[in-house]
Amino acid sequence: MGLLEKTVSEILPLDADAMRAAEKRIKSLTMPDWALGRICDVAVRLAGITGKMPPPVKERVIVVMAGDHGVVEEGVSPQPPTVTQQMVGNMAAGGAGVNVLARLNAAQVVLADFGMAERDEELVRQGRLVDCNVGKGTANFAKGPAMSRESAIRAVENGIALARRLAADFDVFGTGEMGIGNTTPATAIASVLTGQSAETLTGPGAGLRREALMHKATVIRKALETHRPDPHDALDILAKVGGYEIAGIAGLIVGALAERKPVLVDGFISTAGAMAAKVLCPEVGSGVILAHGSAEPGHAAMCAWLGQRPLLDLGMRLGEGTGAAMAMNIIDAASRILTEMATFDSAGVEVTGLGGRP
Amino acid sequence: MGLLEKTVSEILPLDADAMRAAEKRIKSLTMPDWALGRICDVAVRLAGITGKMPPPVKERVIVVMAGDHGVVEEGVSPQPPTVTQQMVGNMAAGGAGVNVLARLNAAQVVLADFGMAERDEELVRQGRLVDCNVGKGTANFAKGPAMSRESAIRAVENGIALARRLAADFDVFGTGEMGIGNTTPATAIASVLTGQSAETLTGPGAGLRREALMHKATVIRKALETHRPDPHDALDILAKVGGYEIAGIAGLIVGALAERKPVLVDGFISTAGAMAAKVLCPEVGSGVILAHGSAEPGHAAMCAWLGQRPLLDLGMRLGEGTGAAMAMNIIDAASRILTEMATFDSAGVEVTGLGGRP
Repeated sequence: MGLLEKTVSEILPLDADAMRAAEKRIKSLTMPDWALGRICDVAVRLAGITGKMPPPVKERVIVVMAGDHGVVEEGVSPQPPTVTQQMVGNMAAGGAGVNVLARLNAAQVVLADFGMAERDEELVRQGRLVDCNVGKGTANFAKGPAMSRESAIRAVENGIALARRLAADFDVFGTGEMGIGNTTPATAIASVLTGQSAETLTGPGAGLRREALMHKATVIRKALETHRPDPHDALDILAKVGGYEIAGIAGLIVGALAERKPVLVDGFISTAGAMAAKVLCPEVGSGVILAHGSAEPGHAAMCAWLGQRPLLDLGMRLGEGTGAAMAMNIIDAASRILTEMATFDSAGVEVTGLGGRP
Repeated sequence: MGLLEKTVSEILPLDADAMRAAEKRIKSLTMPDWALGRICDVAVRLAGITGKMPPPVKERVIVVMAGDHGVVEEGVSPQPPTVTQQMVGNMAAGGAGVNVLARLNAAQVVLADFGMAERDEELVRQGRLVDCNVGKGTANFAKGPAMSRESAIRAVENGIALARRLAADFDVFGTGEMGIGNTTPATAIASVLTGQSAETLTGPGAGLRREALMHKATVIRKALETHRPDPHDALDILAKVGGYEIAGIAGLIVGALAERKPVLVDGFISTAGAMAAKVLCPEVGSGVILAHGSAEPGHAAMCAWLGQRPLLDLGMRLGEGTGAAMAMNIIDAASRILTEMATFDSAGVEVTGLGGRP
């Protein structure tokens, strides 16, 4: 049994006892029943995922996985592919959006190369860019599969290994990514799994204009018609129309959940990774937490497919892990109400039959 | 000219120069144009409200204003009025929801009595409960006006004075409240100003069940038919169907904006206070920031009347200032992207015509 199968077999359903304990605690807190709404829901989910009550959330990491995409040859992105490496450099220096928002919410940023075409080797030597590289950018999936099935497995397993290593130091994971062109494979994955057309799901990504956007949708539709990825086989989808960093995200999610660590799934690209992870293991559906709704139009259908509504809706479309970084604040809130809020008993506040506990 | 008129006359429109400077800065940051969505919008608003670029947001306060309501005699709340005082005690001890979430986002909580029926004098002596009391609970507005016009003015002016005093120490304000029964006056205010019926706007508050809920709507509708508050006269509305703490919220907002301090408006009750403040001064419409959408059904119509969409939508219905406390994280994010994020120039990241700057 390979690392992937072994890891998937270790993922347990949510812990019902821990969830009941969290629910009971919430119902004893000095507020009308469930009056903190989704913060209460998240608290119960955290207990279920971690199997602990209260769930630990203090040490947080946003893992930013980088990769390049051969399909950019087709003109699907307004940015040149060199920007992937430049932005990874910007992140290593602490200047990108994800760095700022992760600092704000006390999360560390870990950068990992899953498939960059070029990289600054100095960053790898200094340990500031983790080497999970599977290939120097995917092949152009308009012309053939993005990668071999073996490469898809390696990228997923590199994500698993990274998660298992980081699990020693961190309580909560957030996903993030950097890869010029990666809304194109993410949209292709979404189309395969939701069954919705590429035309419906395709959006402007980093700023594509109208005609180029229709071209992008056509590139995706044609690739899906040619390759016919099997919607029940995540590795087939990832190999044919995925990306190294998207496979890495799927692996990170599976690895983190096997370690009973909650995973905040960032926006559009990360959600495609979570969808692939759910095909690998159905428990992923209840184990991940969607951080924010992307401004990218296809995202709503992807969230619906995962059966979740994202926590935040701030019109963000940057990726990187910025939405996961912002949602860390809600994770923190959910944990703190379980431990810091007074109960009706401890505070000497009256409860009537109609109010606090229905 | 009284304090109220003087303060209203000092409120300026948003500072266009500071907003342009913030916009220019955002367009230079290493991300596709406006890719952090509403975080970018908030950054520009903060610059406009404060007149400063970057806008200071470091010192934050949630002002929790407490008051009691004579209308609880009509059975409009499932909780006994004694809970107001008990919960203020809980807040003074740091155990309520607002304390937990304010600590999380580095905001102080200031408690103020605007109209509590009973209070712990020890808290006032210790300076842990600010004395802004105008009366020991409002009169039952099902039988007569909630308070005199003079009392409404005093409550608003006490809010102004509190804001002007706190402005020396704090950069950003959040509103909060505690008052058993206060969704009833808030709904009445919303009905007067939106023109929607009490039946449409009334919700369960702290947990009212179906029949009692219809009764609550009837109490509100009858009071409005009897008193006929003038929708163009905030003091008339507050006096006839308002509450001391709601008038205090309106005053706090007006006072903070006169000091060019951003105000995060919490949920249902606070939004009613913001509506009254907007009747006092139209600039309030662009000067306040709505923190979160309340689960209370009338709230959406109130936000629409103010011309804003709240930042968060977490199904919360606790009040206290908990939503304002959570939204402080977004204020912080908006401020930090202006100062901590790298620019295309500083990070050496390419910009193409299609991408970063359209």
